[in-house]
Amino acid sequence: MVFSNGDVPDDFGVSGVSCYFPASFVRQEALEKAHGHKEPGKYTIGLGQTEMAFCSDKEDSVSLALTVTQMLLDEYEIDPSSVGFLGVASETLVDKSKSIKSALMPLFGDNTDISGVDVKHACYGGTQALFDGLGWLHRTYPIQHRLAIVVCTDIAVYADGPARCTGGAGAVALLLSPGAPLVFDNGLESTHGHHGYDFFKPVGAHNCEYPIVAGKESISAYLSALSTCYKLYKRKSKAYAGRDKLSLVDFDAACFHSPFTKLVRKAVAVMVAEDAREGGRVRGEEKMEGIVAGLRAQEEPSDLSVISPESLKASEQTWQEITSPNLEMNRRLGNMYTPSLYVQLVGYLSRLEEEKREEGRERRILMYSYGSGSMASVYSFTLNEGMTERLRRMIDVSRSIVGRLDEREERTPEEYGETMAQREKFYTQRVPSTPSSLSSSSLYPLFPGTFHLSSIDDQYRRQYARVDTRRV
Amino acid sequence: MVFSNGDVPDDFGVSGVSCYFPASFVRQEALEKAHGHKEPGKYTIGLGQTEMAFCSDKEDSVSLALTVTQMLLDEYEIDPSSVGFLGVASETLVDKSKSIKSALMPLFGDNTDISGVDVKHACYGGTQALFDGLGWLHRTYPIQHRLAIVVCTDIAVYADGPARCTGGAGAVALLLSPGAPLVFDNGLESTHGHHGYDFFKPVGAHNCEYPIVAGKESISAYLSALSTCYKLYKRKSKAYAGRDKLSLVDFDAACFHSPFTKLVRKAVAVMVAEDAREGGRVRGEEKMEGIVAGLRAQEEPSDLSVISPESLKASEQTWQEITSPNLEMNRRLGNMYTPSLYVQLVGYLSRLEEEKREEGRERRILMYSYGSGSMASVYSFTLNEGMTERLRRMIDVSRSIVGRLDEREERTPEEYGETMAQREKFYTQRVPSTPSSLSSSSLYPLFPGTFHLSSIDDQYRRQYARVDTRRV
Repeated sequence: MVFSNGDVPDDFGVSGVSCYFPASFVRQEALEKAHGHKEPGKYTIGLGQTEMAFCSDKEDSVSLALTVTQMLLDEYEIDPSSVGFLGVASETLVDKSKSIKSALMPLFGDNTDISGVDVKHACYGGTQALFDGLGWLHRTYPIQHRLAIVVCTDIAVYADGPARCTGGAGAVALLLSPGAPLVFDNGLESTHGHHGYDFFKPVGAHNCEYPIVAGKESISAYLSALSTCYKLYKRKSKAYAGRDKLSLVDFDAACFHSPFTKLVRKAVAVMVAEDAREGGRVRGEEKMEGIVAGLRAQEEPSDLSVISPESLKASEQTWQEITSPNLEMNRRLGNMYTPSLYVQLVGYLSRLEEEKREEGRERRILMYSYGSGSMASVYSFTLNEGMTERLRRMIDVSRSIVGRLDEREERTPEEYGETMAQREKFYTQRVPSTPSSLSSSSLYPLFPGTFHLSSIDDQYRRQYARVDTRRV
Repeated sequence: MVFSNGDVPDDFGVSGVSCYFPASFVRQEALEKAHGHKEPGKYTIGLGQTEMAFCSDKEDSVSLALTVTQMLLDEYEIDPSSVGFLGVASETLVDKSKSIKSALMPLFGDNTDISGVDVKHACYGGTQALFDGLGWLHRTYPIQHRLAIVVCTDIAVYADGPARCTGGAGAVALLLSPGAPLVFDNGLESTHGHHGYDFFKPVGAHNCEYPIVAGKESISAYLSALSTCYKLYKRKSKAYAGRDKLSLVDFDAACFHSPFTKLVRKAVAVMVAEDAREGGRVRGEEKMEGIVAGLRAQEEPSDLSVISPESLKASEQTWQEITSPNLEMNRRLGNMYTPSLYVQLVGYLSRLEEEKREEGRERRILMYSYGSGSMASVYSFTLNEGMTERLRRMIDVSRSIVGRLDEREERTPEEYGETMAQREKFYTQRVPSTPSSLSSSSLYPLFPGTFHLSSIDDQYRRQYARVDTRRV
């Protein structure tokens, strides 16, 4: 039975975004040297990364989620009693049973009627939580008129070795509602699920924070799932929205899960080659007709991770215009797992008014989410420019977030290495235990208002505290 | 933007259910003796449990999920290409990143466009996956006409000690669609989320399969969340469905998360007392007017876990008629965590035609889901008796499932203890490793068609195999 008080709105989507990242970072140029790479550029050019955020042992996925959720509530002046759904995505688990979501309940006071728990599938979880939040709005909004929040929280750390430089940390919170500035193009989302072992974190014998990674396989799985999802997205766009020969030219931004930005560069090349093969337009093709014509005539390569010079060339303008500028936070924070795709919304929004709007043209944002193991989706938002006030708020908040990148403190590779060693030790430390980085001499500052882990008691219960919200 | 090919149906719900449980069990009477309780009845009367299912080390939450999903596909002749959502709930994690859902993808062949990953919050996860699946149907069914599947899979094991007898194991799969025999009463679901540590499974230093349990607190949290949710459910029933003074008299069945059935007995007493206080009717009140009148006059006790003799008496007929008969699988399998609530739908459906239908009266089923940490919801289904053929299939499948309880093999408490020791050892065993219970002399049989773990390779990748589907 459905008890409806009204129609289902047709403009559900994202109407608020916030982002928290830790106050410490290490420079990739310094890491390259410290890791013994004589020629500079291994991480900066090879991976396309400039800095990497990291957390000491006083931050965990719960504290990050507490901080970003409180930020969202404050920045958008959300009445906690108006929230009816709260979904949390993470692959940085502190518990195999209890949800991070339950630890966020104190932020909502007397309102305990909040649906949603934790969702888990590698870096893809945030996308699933978004889809679930939208489904919840479709199912309940006409009855209850309440809002949804989705939180992505992760700390990416790797064992000492070649993958260590691809770490990062951060959290994103999204507010979902009708009348959203970023309207979800419902029904076009195209998914590819597959059973694989390219990156995972087995419990038991492998008792540490670090994943098991098959790097090459993961890159290949990321790109081939992208190709599958993008083709399906095009088919659905044609079937459900009557959009034929859709290509990246039809988008104002293309955002990607970004383990490192050089992989995203490859992803854009794969998509542009796909556009060309399908007879779609390519940005800047008038200046390189021969190259695009060549791509049009080529068959799809069997190994998508081998990027041809032609597809790199043909996709350069696309990359420069709709993807690269949104990646600043990814370059300076590193891989954040579940938030990695969503910080690009922050990047896009922070720059929005600097660009010119073409009259009568819809501004659309393409999103590619990937999680090892694997799950992947291509979906899209349409910018709802009528939502002036809400959009303005999102732009202001996004600018302030990007500005905070410069307020972080740099640490040396040695200090970073020590912090990782502290985290390793703390992970399996006998309880009761206290994070070593809590000591007053700690090198690891926290931004005002940050929640942090204060102790784990003898019953393994985690206690959290919050630093002063005022700047001192 | 919403691209709709039709209206949203108003009869989404459960149109298929299947259940897998392991082929071995231990008798609670034997366990009582073996655990040194001189007086019989500690587990059988004290907890209300008769048998307990258990898995050897060749079964894990993934293999259980593979088995039950294949069973559902077969029993309801579901075309794998018709499925668009697959959500998996578990708190028996084998990985902190990769989802169990991704390991089920091979069962769906070429259909890889399947949304949904894993959801996690103790025993509550299945309910969230159900809500998410329903939201997905509301959001996408008018466009795509595809079906949803929800899978609950868990193995409940406890360290040697007083909680060990409250283990169990099993998996449930639900098919969700419009035109469902069990229509979800959309919008009435009432939730209570709370940050607590009554039962949890910390990662790191506590590196084992067993939870940390605060038994008393958990019972108290279970009952107090029930009271909160039930009150809210009544308020929503009045506000959205015009049902005033709703009580358990209005339901054909009341199903509960069941750690052990004696706790469910208490839950029914708490609800009946609540019904009485609110002026609602009580089953059989004509035979005990004084008692019910006494309850009506009482204030709500501050500690709900102290059950008064009056509320026990007043709730006895309710318990006997709408709850106890559905608990057979819970009594004989033990706590199954996420599937524990949903096997009662099997119990209810297996008995459905033996009861008489009252003319013109809707048959409704109340559900109480609880997960430590904590999340709880009260919600309901309405039986759609017009769906004769689908309902018939659900009844037939349910009877066959209940019948399979008698096909299991009994093991002694000593054999059970050895199996737990094997699981403990296997959990942290160095890879590559092979389950010891795979040896040909193993005491632990598997039903035909059961998937099982065959090995963990040197890269921690789990391999699965399936036993012959024919009975030999």
